Amino acid sequence: MEIIVKKDILSKNKVEARDNRAFAREKGWYLVNVMGSPGAGKTSLIEMLIKELEDRFKTGVIEGDIASAIDAERMEKAGIPVIQINTGGACHLDAASVRAGMEKLPLSEPGIVFIENVGNLVCPASFDLGEDLRLLVSSVPEGYDKPYKYISMFAVADVIALHKEDLIEADGFETAVFEKGLRMINPEAPLYYTSAKTGKGISELTRWLAIRIDSRI
Amino acid sequence: MEIIVKKDILSKNKVEARDNRAFAREKGWYLVNVMGSPGAGKTSLIEMLIKELEDRFKTGVIEGDIASAIDAERMEKAGIPVIQINTGGACHLDAASVRAGMEKLPLSEPGIVFIENVGNLVCPASFDLGEDLRLLVSSVPEGYDKPYKYISMFAVADVIALHKEDLIEADGFETAVFEKGLRMINPEAPLYYTSAKTGKGISELTRWLAIRIDSRI
Repeated sequence: MEIIVKKDILSKNKVEARDNRAFAREKGWYLVNVMGSPGAGKTSLIEMLIKELEDRFKTGVIEGDIASAIDAERMEKAGIPVIQINTGGACHLDAASVRAGMEKLPLSEPGIVFIENVGNLVCPASFDLGEDLRLLVSSVPEGYDKPYKYISMFAVADVIALHKEDLIEADGFETAVFEKGLRMINPEAPLYYTSAKTGKGISELTRWLAIRIDSRI
Repeated sequence: MEIIVKKDILSKNKVEARDNRAFAREKGWYLVNVMGSPGAGKTSLIEMLIKELEDRFKTGVIEGDIASAIDAERMEKAGIPVIQINTGGACHLDAASVRAGMEKLPLSEPGIVFIENVGNLVCPASFDLGEDLRLLVSSVPEGYDKPYKYISMFAVADVIALHKEDLIEADGFETAVFEKGLRMINPEAPLYYTSAKTGKGISELTRWLAIRIDSRI
């Protein structure tokens, strides 16, 4: 008797993510999956990190959006090798679409590749893309209660940037409540307070990233 | 020969949404589905609308979140009949979960019921809850490019609140670009510039809502 076990979409993704990991290793790419709400500041943070990293590493970006190529055009203008993926409705990138992006990314040397996920604080948490690191961008205007509401996303993050930190006072953002919620579900991932406006925290986050990349590439 | 047509999840939801509509009509409830990104300010906007509406209408709230009861507790403190739904992972409310909320909502008279959807600018667009109206809350810190990236959400909205409008200047938010993108996909839905900080636009949006509710209840 033949028993057919139907693989669900998540386990299919798992296999493809493993293949991505092998593909990236071959290329010498370190993959960073950048996740966060719409408008959290993912693109601006990636741009600033690349500026700090590009003296030492080659860099590239895979842009994920439901529609449009706004972010990819922005990266291209800045001279960064980039490829845009449009999910056409899906609320997250998956390993297969990232693989398509990796194959077309105009970066022939080893380096660091930022994968900007679809702006969403729910769906991307469930989809392994084959990345080496998950960077969660949570921004001050979203409010300090987010770790309590969007548990999976904060739980799977390897590092968190609390972005737009220059607005903490004006917004009455309670950092202690935010950190308490974060630490309940993710006791260890480093938390950096960052701002694209003032540049705060960017060097510190870059330094932390560089150590990880050095040990891999 | 029997042919079994497997109904997909969306058409099942459609039927349940139709039932919700009938149930709300019986109760004399006008249902407003409030959608938007995490931290867009949905809860604050609902609170302010209720404050303006409560002299004339009974009000209630169904709170949707993946986890936590933070928003429901906030409503309860303000003396508003409320019920919390936790989706336990899902990135949107569906008609069945809203129905469960409607059945437990401690509001016995006709009135207006706000359904605060999960913070998400993608998934809720595909799920009819049986609502009379879809109010999309888009906030200034999210950026003016959102209608270009999150097309479905802006397309299905019956009315849009551009919230936290007090930040337009500080954020360099380009209203013309935002409106152009919005009008490309949704030429008719009214757009209100609102702020919980200054109270701007709240009376205007309330007035527009009240006319619609009057014609229904």
